[in-house]
Amino acid sequence: MYMERVLTANAPSGEYVRVGGFVENLRNKRYMAFIVLRDMSGKLQLTVDKGAYPDVAAEVDKLTVESVVTAYGKVVDNPAVKMGGREMVVEKLVVESVAEAMPMMADSSIDARLDYRWIDLRTEKNKLMIKAQTEFVRSMRNYLLERDFVEIHTPKIIGAASESGADVFELTYFDRKAYLAQSPQFYKQMAMAAGLERIFEVGPVFRAEKSFTSRHATEFTCFDLEFSYIDSFEDVMHMEELLLQDALKNVAEKYGGEIERLFGLKTVVPTVPFPRIKLHDLYDELEKRYGYTVPEEEKIDLSTDAEKLSYKFAMEEYGHEFLFVTDFPKDKRAFYHMRKDGVPQGYDLIWRGTEITTGAQREHRYEQLRRQADEKGLGEDVKFYMEFFRYGCPPHGGFGLGVDRMTMLLLDIGIKEAEFIFRSPIRLNP
Amino acid sequence: MYMERVLTANAPSGEYVRVGGFVENLRNKRYMAFIVLRDMSGKLQLTVDKGAYPDVAAEVDKLTVESVVTAYGKVVDNPAVKMGGREMVVEKLVVESVAEAMPMMADSSIDARLDYRWIDLRTEKNKLMIKAQTEFVRSMRNYLLERDFVEIHTPKIIGAASESGADVFELTYFDRKAYLAQSPQFYKQMAMAAGLERIFEVGPVFRAEKSFTSRHATEFTCFDLEFSYIDSFEDVMHMEELLLQDALKNVAEKYGGEIERLFGLKTVVPTVPFPRIKLHDLYDELEKRYGYTVPEEEKIDLSTDAEKLSYKFAMEEYGHEFLFVTDFPKDKRAFYHMRKDGVPQGYDLIWRGTEITTGAQREHRYEQLRRQADEKGLGEDVKFYMEFFRYGCPPHGGFGLGVDRMTMLLLDIGIKEAEFIFRSPIRLNP
Repeated sequence: MYMERVLTANAPSGEYVRVGGFVENLRNKRYMAFIVLRDMSGKLQLTVDKGAYPDVAAEVDKLTVESVVTAYGKVVDNPAVKMGGREMVVEKLVVESVAEAMPMMADSSIDARLDYRWIDLRTEKNKLMIKAQTEFVRSMRNYLLERDFVEIHTPKIIGAASESGADVFELTYFDRKAYLAQSPQFYKQMAMAAGLERIFEVGPVFRAEKSFTSRHATEFTCFDLEFSYIDSFEDVMHMEELLLQDALKNVAEKYGGEIERLFGLKTVVPTVPFPRIKLHDLYDELEKRYGYTVPEEEKIDLSTDAEKLSYKFAMEEYGHEFLFVTDFPKDKRAFYHMRKDGVPQGYDLIWRGTEITTGAQREHRYEQLRRQADEKGLGEDVKFYMEFFRYGCPPHGGFGLGVDRMTMLLLDIGIKEAEFIFRSPIRLNP
Repeated sequence: MYMERVLTANAPSGEYVRVGGFVENLRNKRYMAFIVLRDMSGKLQLTVDKGAYPDVAAEVDKLTVESVVTAYGKVVDNPAVKMGGREMVVEKLVVESVAEAMPMMADSSIDARLDYRWIDLRTEKNKLMIKAQTEFVRSMRNYLLERDFVEIHTPKIIGAASESGADVFELTYFDRKAYLAQSPQFYKQMAMAAGLERIFEVGPVFRAEKSFTSRHATEFTCFDLEFSYIDSFEDVMHMEELLLQDALKNVAEKYGGEIERLFGLKTVVPTVPFPRIKLHDLYDELEKRYGYTVPEEEKIDLSTDAEKLSYKFAMEEYGHEFLFVTDFPKDKRAFYHMRKDGVPQGYDLIWRGTEITTGAQREHRYEQLRRQADEKGLGEDVKFYMEFFRYGCPPHGGFGLGVDRMTMLLLDIGIKEAEFIFRSPIRLNP
């Protein structure tokens, strides 16, 4: 008789069920065998009475740790079993796949583990990482879909190197050269010129940077959005704080307990509005409070140290993990940020001491945009982009969030561990 | 006083509101001006009494067709107005962006329109296309999320050309060569070896094919899924038919009426199970019913003509738009499809006469997989992939759906019109 597999977490005591999973642990004794079976939901002890079930015993003899089995049997309460006080008395066992000896250990270096990422991902922590990331992204998408956003899929192969010609991957496109998109920025704005009004995209971005920090990767997933008919970049910040509040609320509800148990971190649902401070005022505070001084000419951008200290400041001053920093000088901002009295109408958002977003109202007026592009010496590279603004375009703004970086900060892990598969200048496998 | 913009479709009669959109039509007469304003939700007539509002009249004088405006005024019923019997009496008008003369027409050739895709997308039909695609994908993702699937983001830059070395884009990755992924197939399966059990991904795939048909593109969006602990490829087909039924039900409920009005097509919610037929039996039926004959040695795959005729057959025999075709010979299937008595355990799914999916149970047993790879002469190319199966892997299967191709078939349009931005060997702009 056919029987559908159930997750071990859902296997009810007293029922005859089918389960399937990896052999996490195996004790094959003379009369009895004990298997710890691991699936996506948790673990269950499988108990084999070898005398009563010789066929099962013969299958157990083939097993190695990390092999995959399907087991049929009755789930019974057994207070002696540490793992949930339950076990399955196995009546039938199918060996689906036999594992060779493990080529790495749980305590191997991260680089050794990444070589065998498919084994590394089997840990409870890594599964939770994937689940929490899924919920984070689901929640953000859902928030936007409920507010009339549509989803677009912009091209990753582009004809012209975008804003910063450096750090871009080049490829052979039939008989010509092409490039991999560093961001969907220009296409998000094209969607605004197309009158789509409110769009989002979740997709890969590519950076040919030779960076070897704990937060840079050459390929990662970006959650991008852009929307029209805004009045200022305040509208953009407000959208972002609401979006993040909702996402963190959902993640906390669903996985907050598990994140605390496995990663030792509370998932804090932020209050809205997030605190806001001007860049120069932030430097003043950091100096006044922590004696952090930098030369005046460096106060045009946030250094990694200043980002880290700003977390301390935000917690002390506002009791908040997030901090919007505004009023960056125009030299440090992209040419397409709208300016008001010469000040770029955008912001960085810092979470737990790391920048997670640059957002802005964009310049949608062709003549102004042309002047700002010329001022930065951008010519041919942005020519196709400039065209989007000649035939009518609403005022708009937006931002992008690195999905992997958010995951990294949520769980206090490195970027290598926050990506399904990590890519760096020296890592292209698996 | 600040006032939030409302969509024209939601602008209530009798209320003073703010709207924003493109100027679709403009009649600037001596005493009155009439603007047809278009936004994402529809259209509204803006009426300007030039004598009563000279400031508004001055702004109207700056306008051209396709310029963008924000308007404030009272919405009133007016049976004389064809467009919904309503108009806005404008009291304040802000010109957000002035459009130059349009560089293309609505009836220009598709290639001329694609050069200015951001203008082309402004039509009611194209907006509906984007909305329907959004709903289709939302629905499929949601269906899976409700069934314990997690979302993964697999790398698009890969170290080795995948199964078919041809048709792959090559790029310079620092001091070595790399390739763009033609499909997430290998990584979906890696996720199964990782014990993630049920995963999906929506992302770009890249094909360096010199194809110039109405259904091929060099870059498109794929909806991929893979799941473990299946018993046969019947489980995969069943998942797919339920997924598509649910998605088409949601699309039909939300946009069925509009699709019929603008594209002249009924959105049919398919019954489950979808009909299934073996490849050879299908050829027998096509010959018997329609006199379609092909040499025996060509009956190893579905030709484009056979796909088209199979739609006729499916409608006549089953009254169904979908048809699962099974039992392809192993020569025509990927090496990683599981085989039973030599027959690949997979299928093609045909919708409205076009193939939309190849699905299968995969071979998860290392030794069998090794033999099947050797038989196809695959060595180094699949070496990294083979590793996934050495350390335990559950039985699994899955499929992928081209999002753009689904959109194309849903609306009976060409692939060029079904992508946000179309890419072909000779098209790399915008």
